[in-house]
Amino acid sequence: MRIGKNEKLVMIGDSITDCERARPVGEGLFNAIGRGYVGVVDALLTSTYPELGIRVVNIGTSGNTVRDLEARWQTDVLDLKPDWLSIMIGTNDVWRQFDSPTMRESHVLLEEYEEKLEALVASTLPRLKGLVLMTPFFIEPNPNDRMRAQMDLYGAAVKRIAAKYDTLFIDTQEAFNRVLEHLYSGTLAWDRVHPNQAGHAVLARAFLQSVGYEYAKGL
Amino acid sequence: MRIGKNEKLVMIGDSITDCERARPVGEGLFNAIGRGYVGVVDALLTSTYPELGIRVVNIGTSGNTVRDLEARWQTDVLDLKPDWLSIMIGTNDVWRQFDSPTMRESHVLLEEYEEKLEALVASTLPRLKGLVLMTPFFIEPNPNDRMRAQMDLYGAAVKRIAAKYDTLFIDTQEAFNRVLEHLYSGTLAWDRVHPNQAGHAVLARAFLQSVGYEYAKGL
Amino acid sequence: MRIGKNEKLVMIGDSITDCERARPVGEGLFNAIGRGYVGVVDALLTSTYPELGIRVVNIGTSGNTVRDLEARWQTDVLDLKPDWLSIMIGTNDVWRQFDSPTMRESHVLLEEYEEKLEALVASTLPRLKGLVLMTPFFIEPNPNDRMRAQMDLYGAAVKRIAAKYDTLFIDTQEAFNRVLEHLYSGTLAWDRVHPNQAGHAVLARAFLQSVGYEYAKGL
Amino acid sequence: MRIGKNEKLVMIGDSITDCERARPVGEGLFNAIGRGYVGVVDALLTSTYPELGIRVVNIGTSGNTVRDLEARWQTDVLDLKPDWLSIMIGTNDVWRQFDSPTMRESHVLLEEYEEKLEALVASTLPRLKGLVLMTPFFIEPNPNDRMRAQMDLYGAAVKRIAAKYDTLFIDTQEAFNRVLEHLYSGTLAWDRVHPNQAGHAVLARAFLQSVGYEYAKGL
Amino acid sequence: MRIGKNEKLVMIGDSITDCERARPVGEGLFNAIGRGYVGVVDALLTSTYPELGIRVVNIGTSGNTVRDLEARWQTDVLDLKPDWLSIMIGTNDVWRQFDSPTMRESHVLLEEYEEKLEALVASTLPRLKGLVLMTPFFIEPNPNDRMRAQMDLYGAAVKRIAAKYDTLFIDTQEAFNRVLEHLYSGTLAWDRVHPNQAGHAVLARAFLQSVGYEYAKGL
Amino acid sequence: MRIGKNEKLVMIGDSITDCERARPVGEGLFNAIGRGYVGVVDALLTSTYPELGIRVVNIGTSGNTVRDLEARWQTDVLDLKPDWLSIMIGTNDVWRQFDSPTMRESHVLLEEYEEKLEALVASTLPRLKGLVLMTPFFIEPNPNDRMRAQMDLYGAAVKRIAAKYDTLFIDTQEAFNRVLEHLYSGTLAWDRVHPNQAGHAVLARAFLQSVGYEYAKGL
Amino acid sequence: MRIGKNEKLVMIGDSITDCERARPVGEGLFNAIGRGYVGVVDALLTSTYPELGIRVVNIGTSGNTVRDLEARWQTDVLDLKPDWLSIMIGTNDVWRQFDSPTMRESHVLLEEYEEKLEALVASTLPRLKGLVLMTPFFIEPNPNDRMRAQMDLYGAAVKRIAAKYDTLFIDTQEAFNRVLEHLYSGTLAWDRVHPNQAGHAVLARAFLQSVGYEYAKGL
Amino acid sequence: MRIGKNEKLVMIGDSITDCERARPVGEGLFNAIGRGYVGVVDALLTSTYPELGIRVVNIGTSGNTVRDLEARWQTDVLDLKPDWLSIMIGTNDVWRQFDSPTMRESHVLLEEYEEKLEALVASTLPRLKGLVLMTPFFIEPNPNDRMRAQMDLYGAAVKRIAAKYDTLFIDTQEAFNRVLEHLYSGTLAWDRVHPNQAGHAVLARAFLQSVGYEYAKGL
Repeated sequence: MRIGKNEKLVMIGDSITDCERARPVGEGLFNAIGRGYVGVVDALLTSTYPELGIRVVNIGTSGNTVRDLEARWQTDVLDLKPDWLSIMIGTNDVWRQFDSPTMRESHVLLEEYEEKLEALVASTLPRLKGLVLMTPFFIEPNPNDRMRAQMDLYGAAVKRIAAKYDTLFIDTQEAFNRVLEHLYSGTLAWDRVHPNQAGHAVLARAFLQSVGYEYAKGL
Repeated sequence: MRIGKNEKLVMIGDSITDCERARPVGEGLFNAIGRGYVGVVDALLTSTYPELGIRVVNIGTSGNTVRDLEARWQTDVLDLKPDWLSIMIGTNDVWRQFDSPTMRESHVLLEEYEEKLEALVASTLPRLKGLVLMTPFFIEPNPNDRMRAQMDLYGAAVKRIAAKYDTLFIDTQEAFNRVLEHLYSGTLAWDRVHPNQAGHAVLARAFLQSVGYEYAKGL
Repeated sequence: MRIGKNEKLVMIGDSITDCERARPVGEGLFNAIGRGYVGVVDALLTSTYPELGIRVVNIGTSGNTVRDLEARWQTDVLDLKPDWLSIMIGTNDVWRQFDSPTMRESHVLLEEYEEKLEALVASTLPRLKGLVLMTPFFIEPNPNDRMRAQMDLYGAAVKRIAAKYDTLFIDTQEAFNRVLEHLYSGTLAWDRVHPNQAGHAVLARAFLQSVGYEYAKGL
Repeated sequence: MRIGKNEKLVMIGDSITDCERARPVGEGLFNAIGRGYVGVVDALLTSTYPELGIRVVNIGTSGNTVRDLEARWQTDVLDLKPDWLSIMIGTNDVWRQFDSPTMRESHVLLEEYEEKLEALVASTLPRLKGLVLMTPFFIEPNPNDRMRAQMDLYGAAVKRIAAKYDTLFIDTQEAFNRVLEHLYSGTLAWDRVHPNQAGHAVLARAFLQSVGYEYAKGL
Repeated sequence: MRIGKNEKLVMIGDSITDCERARPVGEGLFNAIGRGYVGVVDALLTSTYPELGIRVVNIGTSGNTVRDLEARWQTDVLDLKPDWLSIMIGTNDVWRQFDSPTMRESHVLLEEYEEKLEALVASTLPRLKGLVLMTPFFIEPNPNDRMRAQMDLYGAAVKRIAAKYDTLFIDTQEAFNRVLEHLYSGTLAWDRVHPNQAGHAVLARAFLQSVGYEYAKGL
Repeated sequence: MRIGKNEKLVMIGDSITDCERARPVGEGLFNAIGRGYVGVVDALLTSTYPELGIRVVNIGTSGNTVRDLEARWQTDVLDLKPDWLSIMIGTNDVWRQFDSPTMRESHVLLEEYEEKLEALVASTLPRLKGLVLMTPFFIEPNPNDRMRAQMDLYGAAVKRIAAKYDTLFIDTQEAFNRVLEHLYSGTLAWDRVHPNQAGHAVLARAFLQSVGYEYAKGL
Repeated sequence: MRIGKNEKLVMIGDSITDCERARPVGEGLFNAIGRGYVGVVDALLTSTYPELGIRVVNIGTSGNTVRDLEARWQTDVLDLKPDWLSIMIGTNDVWRQFDSPTMRESHVLLEEYEEKLEALVASTLPRLKGLVLMTPFFIEPNPNDRMRAQMDLYGAAVKRIAAKYDTLFIDTQEAFNRVLEHLYSGTLAWDRVHPNQAGHAVLARAFLQSVGYEYAKGL
Repeated sequence: MRIGKNEKLVMIGDSITDCERARPVGEGLFNAIGRGYVGVVDALLTSTYPELGIRVVNIGTSGNTVRDLEARWQTDVLDLKPDWLSIMIGTNDVWRQFDSPTMRESHVLLEEYEEKLEALVASTLPRLKGLVLMTPFFIEPNPNDRMRAQMDLYGAAVKRIAAKYDTLFIDTQEAFNRVLEHLYSGTLAWDRVHPNQAGHAVLARAFLQSVGYEYAKGL
């Protein structure tokens, strides 16, 4: 298990991360952590490693692109002084190109995406004990689907950054692809973007695997 | 993994099972499965074993005692034709003795509890591929606490029945006790009865362990 | 224009037809007709042919399959004594196979679908001045997508029935396909099933074309 | 079709234009465009000319008079940089004179109306590829009705401005009059001001006709 | 003053009478009498003739036609054992012909209207100390307006019945006409049917005048 | 009739005047005038003298004492430029002494009351065509009741001011007393302060009488 | 202390007793007991005599008269098998005579009141360990007030019945009178009927005194 | 009775004090005092000593720790100019250590607690006629429970301060302990922190005892 005693894990992203988290910071009582993969991660860490006292913070915000992360990075990441950080962004950067094609100012194209994301990683990494970069995903098995293909390009950018800076890396698209061999996309997400509980479990399992979570501990 | 392809798992209980499930039957789209341990079980089974097509049904009802289970057993268990069944009941049977001491008709005493639960088990077991009996629990580490001590007696009754009929058995109190060595009860449940997400993860992990779930599968 | 003076057009279907129509019958004041293609059809007929006094009735019901149509056919079609009738059904017959794969009793397979739909058509046609059969559709351009491929089979069944009974026929999938050459599915429907106003305009234009509507009349 | 590829059409007006549009700008997902004639125009343009990628923006505001348009012209028209612009204003300028006769400061008399509207047209026209001026209307067939007669004077002012600046022009009153030959006003609007869907179809058809929309394209 | 000590006045009609009255019977505490002309009548009678103890009951129901009055006459009039009765009905009988022209079964034509109203009057009059027949009205000064003209025919029917049975009679259209010489219809009613407080005062004054109310009494 | 053509009447007071009026100023459409005596006055003036075009404005505010009137006098009276003004204040000045005896800073004692009210009258009278001073009241017939006795002292102060400045004057207590000879206080007001519709009719009749309203005009 | 170990006290009455109690029976968790004097009695008994396990049940119902008690006596008193019973009824029997003078069928006159109350007492007393009869009250110090005087007559009837059957008796009017020597009625009850918390404390103290409650016990 | 005529008692604390009090200050009409022990204290003082006119003010705020009291001390205590003051704080100071163990910045440790509380007491005492210090409590009879043990340490700190400054002192834990000998904690508080009405009665009785309240006065 890579996350240590009393360490703080901040998880940032868009609506898939947000999932009804509390404001201004999603942590603590009354499901403030939200009901998505962050909540599952927190619940499994707490119940499996109660002795570690890991603090999980959900700072995802619905609708966010990497532009929005950049704008709130100081208050929502740096000021929270994380030991560990996870970033999963890009869905809206891509989606707006496909659901709002005429609103071009809302599209975050690949170059801008990679540049901004890399800048955030580069400047923050020195302050962290661990960084987990998660690709965005589209719950669609056809790699030739136009939006899936575009999302894959953004995922590849995340992979490049992870490799360059030697961070932990999760290919969430790949994680979903394994499930999509058996289930139709509609079983996991109404709109192929916002997962139901089973879809969030896919994300949570991939994340926990990346940080060395031992499921059977204590059972 | 003990639950087989296309098999149906029905999970019955009280509010801890219910957790906002849909009516009349908690399964399918829109979080109908509820937000408690049943939802976690379903999410982990679906994401880990998408090829099995296991059908999980939440039929818990808030406030129920074993008397209530008996009253709705035909429609809510037998008519659903489960392959697998889990039962976790007893919290309210005990709790009313402690939060409503003067309302004695609401108390289900140990003898009645064990008799009724055994009758349900005995009559239903022949129709099942698997039965999981879960003890009720009280998220309180002090075994001399009056309500905890009483709950332990009910848990012992469940254990006796499980042994007599050779069913799968989960000592949920023991599962919580391991966590309570490190965390205060209030971190898991406001009222020591209704767990937060971390508490439901304790239950889900114990259940999955009992049916042979392999966490690392596919990772 | 095929629909004549003072004639009554009843349009039946599922949620795509329903679109917030009033109960028990969707017609008359206060947007009772609903906000989907039926509303557009009614609005364009009324504004273009005010002298005809055509009465449009929306009797769509969310979630319906052909089984549900059969169950309410007497009260919701025959009792309304339509001169003209349109039927667009099948989305849920197919969708449940993909979003709820374990709930098999909710799946209406092709054979049952075609048989039930044909029975409704055969028994009702003699009472009508005109019948418009509309295929179900899936707003997905990839014909190899599993759900799209299945939906195409149901559409083909509608086409067979229309040919056998010589009714008016609309291939709604084809109508959407023409638009999908230029727009991504997400621009028309969040979930590829429920169209936005642009998607409903696709349906309304196809319907109006089939009944001989003259757009430029009076302009 | 006069509106070209990737061009932007901004439509401004009062509650008849507004129709529940989103704030601050009515465009994009979730019916942000509103449910009135602007929504119908957008839906028909998008479904008929998907290859053009025309962007329609609804910036109508309930209760507005020409005074209000003047006050928000910079942010709500100029800053949006439209290629095409439509203006339909005047209903409230007139209505307040009739429903609130004692509140004289709320009345925008004809001279002020024409002067302010002309100033907006004159200053904005050079920046546009196309401008559509629409008269206000009152859904009342009797030209001697006091409010209808007054509204006709405001419509005539719009016509004068359109002629002077050689813009596209729509006589919406005339469009409604053709329908009112066959239907009573109450069939189109509860209060003779706010049209139902059929009334909005009258406006949408008139607008689309003015910009060269071809209904049968692609059918 | 014609209404005597401790007598009971029941006022029946449609939404203009109803005006948010309480169910099942509109009388007594908490504005149960409703906020329309019945409320004004009751308030002025009570404050001017406190010594008479007149009991006013509002039994109007929104949307009613004379058909609906007939259907509820036993429970809503006869069972209440009124000494005095007022009837104002006909608005919806006429309105449906104009706002819902295609829904012909909702139209109550003149012959049926007069026949049903007369039957109610004839059978009830012997049990009453006084009966006040009020015409329906349309707040539109133009007698050639199609709906106004139709409403006038229904008013004439009321007048014929009042004359034949020698009841008190109020020409509410005439009462509104006097005000409409000075005010536009929109000042009194958004839709020319449902009066604001000033419009209800027109009705209340006409009613009170008919029963010999002395305004200056006690001042 | 003392109020002239196109004149504006502003009526200020506390909750008895307010009665759900709109903000910031109670006048115009949608019952903005409120549902109390101001609404009755406006409705009777408008329906009886439609040719006068009298503008009635309700600027009462719940909970106000004379202190509050003083604080908002500039914006809520002077800025509205009334021709006529009515003032009815004092209920809360007295009531707080009886329902909140320990909260002494909320009590406006007689001396302060009279001084403040007189100052407002003195400074405003020169700008008015007419001023109506209305006493506060307590709907209790027993003059020895402690709160009634106190209210009578405040009413006497209003009378002194009216006499000194020769304004119109209404003894509202006297108006209620005449009704209370026949009705128990509870028939008019649940709490002896806030009248029901009958109680507001008492106030409206007294006001209208004071300004020369002719009830029978036009009947 | 007269109420013994494990005994059950049922308290019946009208809205003063009801005070937001739960349905169908007001006892147990979540303030089911209501927020009035019954709640105070229960709270003080439980906190002072925790060893007695007295069960208090609130079965008051808003708006009730003695007629209503009679109608629900079997289910709401006898079926609950009380050891102790308290009855406080009469407020609405009297109040309706004063706030709804014309609705004479709602008035329960003194003779009927006394007869019905006595019948309930006579038939129930043999089944009880203790019965507490509480007079109705009116929070008005003037004995000549018409409603107070009438209420006193009803209180005298309660006293007669208590004397005849030798039950415990509480003169609640007298208890309030002692407080009203120092406080105005409005400090205790907005409408002189429904007490605030201080008024309910008056009732609770009087009740507890009658059953021998020892305040200082355990302090 | 130690609190004198017309004196003002301010009671500050956390959610146990707050209990739905009104903002900004909890006193006066409409249950502004809240529904907890402060309300009971006020109700019993007012009903037992109506001649004293004691003014009770609830200024508790949910979630507060001693840090929050310090921050609002000027406006919420000093500016209110109390004669008497009660302070009950510490629950949240302790609770956060147990329900949110990872959020260490929310924990108010013992040293800080005692220092801050003493500073408030020391600086305020000279301005008061009386000060009542109440310990925080945890409704748990087991002194070895981790949170109870910690709460006891905070209670001991309050006791030290009370002794040092010679103030009135209430050991609320002791008051609850006496009840817990007979009742399980769950009968008084769902979460062992927020008492039900019986629990608030424990607090109110202890408080009243400390200020010399005579229960039997006037009975």
